[in-house]
Amino acid sequence: MYKCVAVAEVQSFVERCMRAVGTDPQHSTALSQVLTEADFRGHFTHGLNRLEVYVRDIKNGVTQPQGEPSIEKEAGATALVNGNNLLGPVVGNFCMELAIKKAKEHGIGWVVCKGSTHFGIAGWYSAQALQHGMIGMSMTNTSPVVVPTRASQSSIGTNPLSVAAPGKAGDSFLLDMATSGVALGKVEMCHRKETEIPQGWGVNSKGLETVDPKEVFEGGGLLPLGGKEITGGYKGYGLAMMVDVFCGILSGSTFGTNINDGRGKTKDWLTWVTVS
Amino acid sequence: MYKCVAVAEVQSFVERCMRAVGTDPQHSTALSQVLTEADFRGHFTHGLNRLEVYVRDIKNGVTQPQGEPSIEKEAGATALVNGNNLLGPVVGNFCMELAIKKAKEHGIGWVVCKGSTHFGIAGWYSAQALQHGMIGMSMTNTSPVVVPTRASQSSIGTNPLSVAAPGKAGDSFLLDMATSGVALGKVEMCHRKETEIPQGWGVNSKGLETVDPKEVFEGGGLLPLGGKEITGGYKGYGLAMMVDVFCGILSGSTFGTNINDGRGKTKDWLTWVTVS
Repeated sequence: MYKCVAVAEVQSFVERCMRAVGTDPQHSTALSQVLTEADFRGHFTHGLNRLEVYVRDIKNGVTQPQGEPSIEKEAGATALVNGNNLLGPVVGNFCMELAIKKAKEHGIGWVVCKGSTHFGIAGWYSAQALQHGMIGMSMTNTSPVVVPTRASQSSIGTNPLSVAAPGKAGDSFLLDMATSGVALGKVEMCHRKETEIPQGWGVNSKGLETVDPKEVFEGGGLLPLGGKEITGGYKGYGLAMMVDVFCGILSGSTFGTNINDGRGKTKDWLTWVTVS
Repeated sequence: MYKCVAVAEVQSFVERCMRAVGTDPQHSTALSQVLTEADFRGHFTHGLNRLEVYVRDIKNGVTQPQGEPSIEKEAGATALVNGNNLLGPVVGNFCMELAIKKAKEHGIGWVVCKGSTHFGIAGWYSAQALQHGMIGMSMTNTSPVVVPTRASQSSIGTNPLSVAAPGKAGDSFLLDMATSGVALGKVEMCHRKETEIPQGWGVNSKGLETVDPKEVFEGGGLLPLGGKEITGGYKGYGLAMMVDVFCGILSGSTFGTNINDGRGKTKDWLTWVTVS
């Protein structure tokens, strides 16, 4: 049975949960907006479902409840931001605003960030460019759950990328995708339902394709977009590496297997580009 | 039986072929460099194999043998270039040089181009940034041979993208990939050998997956990276659209099904970004 809940009520609930653990009210609002938007768009894996993690990370000190991001380095159309381990959406909004400001001055803005935390759906940030008649991009690297082509262990994240471009009559193009074939949540659903997963989703601990969701969680991992080598899986792997280069390496942060395993320590690093 | 041919000899052969049909000597050299590099790296579909097409396009007036690209619009870190229908590598080198120059001034350069022709391997251009210690990107849209998710007709190109990033001790990261699962040339090879193609490569004229290469050519097409919908093919389709947005739409050129069918009329449009 489903029950409809008003958007404003969901937002208020998120805000109250975050404030209850000492989060800055404005930061709480920033998070509530992106989580509600994710649920509203149907990305249920990135909505209210994740609230518990954000609350927990504030409580255990992984995420800082108070403060502001800072600009570490700035040159023309580019900047390096330190998120100071604040809530991902606070850092994300800060970077996107900076990128838009730079794009208005230089035609394009490219902002890279370190010291951020989980920022929700990547499309939330790229879409902000639309209001300014600009193209927006956002990417983030994540904890390693994807097994590269010819490997047997997961060593790279689902590393999503998003591009938003304004269209005619208020319409727009919005791409928001993980560079793995599917999200881990989809495998989890099959696991719970005790059904097989389709070929091309995951591998077992030997790096071999499996249709048993249990094997994916027990030492296996996700396949990159494209699946096996014969169907171009190395391309999805290459795209995930590209996101690691733009986010983790360009910002002087962590990447690949150096990113913590997501058990209370996940950190994301972000990058934006905006073309006016 | 194979015969080894010296790189210089291959380059000289390409140059002489192009000059014989009236191509500017410097333009002929630009083309010979990228075609030779493609063969040298093992991208045989984009090397000497294509020489005939470049010669033919000069002869039938699709490609202009003489002239220079021009800058139509310039603002800060960005520019719009008109390739004036010159040889793709001439236009590509021009745009990449401009992007690198802008990146030195503004931290990043983003150059979009219209009126270009087939430019060979995308990685030739992104890799030029490496010599300056920069990250390079290049993309181009192409004639429609890919059938989008839930469609039955090809309406988008294999739209490749490339990213090059400098590494330690002279090493580097170089991604150069089509956003389709495989290149059309791979299906052609199976067709000639009269073997089946693997699942996930192509569809028939009804948009249904097929293992018969003949069906791919007879009204069918390639699948986007990710293959069918269940394995994330819509993501490869989204990436191809992203490339169309950055190349065809941003430059005010052609995109999607508006691009000619490749029979002597193929035009590519290009974009570059360089981050210093």
